[in-house]
Amino acid sequence: MNGDSTISSKGNPIPHATMERLPRYLMQLYRFRVIGDANVSSQALGESLGLKDTQIRKDLSYFGVFGKARYGYNIDFLIDALEKILGLTRVYNLAIVGAGNIGRALATYRGFESREFRVKLIFDNNKGLIGQDIGGIVVQDFRLLEEKIKEIPVDIAIIAVPEKAAYEVAETLVKAGIKAIYNFTPAELHHHEGVFIEHASISFGIYKLAHHLSGHWPRKSQR
Amino acid sequence: MNGDSTISSKGNPIPHATMERLPRYLMQLYRFRVIGDANVSSQALGESLGLKDTQIRKDLSYFGVFGKARYGYNIDFLIDALEKILGLTRVYNLAIVGAGNIGRALATYRGFESREFRVKLIFDNNKGLIGQDIGGIVVQDFRLLEEKIKEIPVDIAIIAVPEKAAYEVAETLVKAGIKAIYNFTPAELHHHEGVFIEHASISFGIYKLAHHLSGHWPRKSQR
Repeated sequence: MNGDSTISSKGNPIPHATMERLPRYLMQLYRFRVIGDANVSSQALGESLGLKDTQIRKDLSYFGVFGKARYGYNIDFLIDALEKILGLTRVYNLAIVGAGNIGRALATYRGFESREFRVKLIFDNNKGLIGQDIGGIVVQDFRLLEEKIKEIPVDIAIIAVPEKAAYEVAETLVKAGIKAIYNFTPAELHHHEGVFIEHASISFGIYKLAHHLSGHWPRKSQR
Repeated sequence: MNGDSTISSKGNPIPHATMERLPRYLMQLYRFRVIGDANVSSQALGESLGLKDTQIRKDLSYFGVFGKARYGYNIDFLIDALEKILGLTRVYNLAIVGAGNIGRALATYRGFESREFRVKLIFDNNKGLIGQDIGGIVVQDFRLLEEKIKEIPVDIAIIAVPEKAAYEVAETLVKAGIKAIYNFTPAELHHHEGVFIEHASISFGIYKLAHHLSGHWPRKSQR
């Protein structure tokens, strides 16, 4: 399943780019809150992010969130709204399969841990890696996956193995009852009813930059 | 600059999600070509990717690329068209700043090397890392950046340092004349005229999966 459109409170589709900006808004709002601000205008939020205030107001209006004239947005309220929109109302347990470079990078990725995503398990089939400590988590034998996720329930499994191994890993994950897979390999995994698969798009930013540099991508931006 | 819309050959904006799917189409077409296929239907391409054939035809039609009834798309022609759309008509030199987990993962990321992106330089300011070999590239002292990129011109610099260090790294890159930056930290970098900055969105897929699991994201997908 690759559904990539969200539906707004009014039933309209929400642009992918809007959904990508929301985590950035949230991160910046956390920073404003730490400073002690109570309110923030769309202008101030926009300036801090290199975005137009109109863009921010448009993005938030999809979710029925509107600022007040002169006061802007109440920061606590907006954080709460964004956390709900982004599904951050509970903690999600993550398992990473593959303790190579990408797996290690993800295991210690601040962007996960600082939000409601907790890496709980790391698996590999390499005997040289099993037993190693990565950011406080001991790498487990992938053959013990089913057993381990009975002890520690896993919401989302991340595949960070070589492309060729990804297919078999995915099958094993699905058999073990995992319902959400984040695939960091270029492999096109088989689809299973009731299992959500997302592709990490590491290369996408590079493509956009290549476009910019080659002049094919329009220089005009939303700034 | 955060322009996130592309303009089609007819002047219409192209959805972000379409631009994200194009690299997947291209990767799959490479696979079909290796097998020796000359043509591929939108149905076959769609099935291999878990996408509807209508989605594929729509995505490609933005660029004026249409298949033929009964034959579908000529694979060589479609690869050529997608490479042009994605700016893969020349090689781009990459420099990675930060030889930690993310930097290492990116330095050896197959998705870059297999296309037209070549990691040429890796920098760090950690003496314990300078001089280390990562995938055949020796980590250089970040203080030598300006000197090194005179020897090896860099098109795109990737920032993979701790968030706090990202601001200073970005300033140094801009001063050294780098025009395209791919930022793998959560830092909101200052904008500079004529410099393109892209954010890696590692967390985005996780958010989407969290949505799916929490039921907020519509289950109905484009499959």
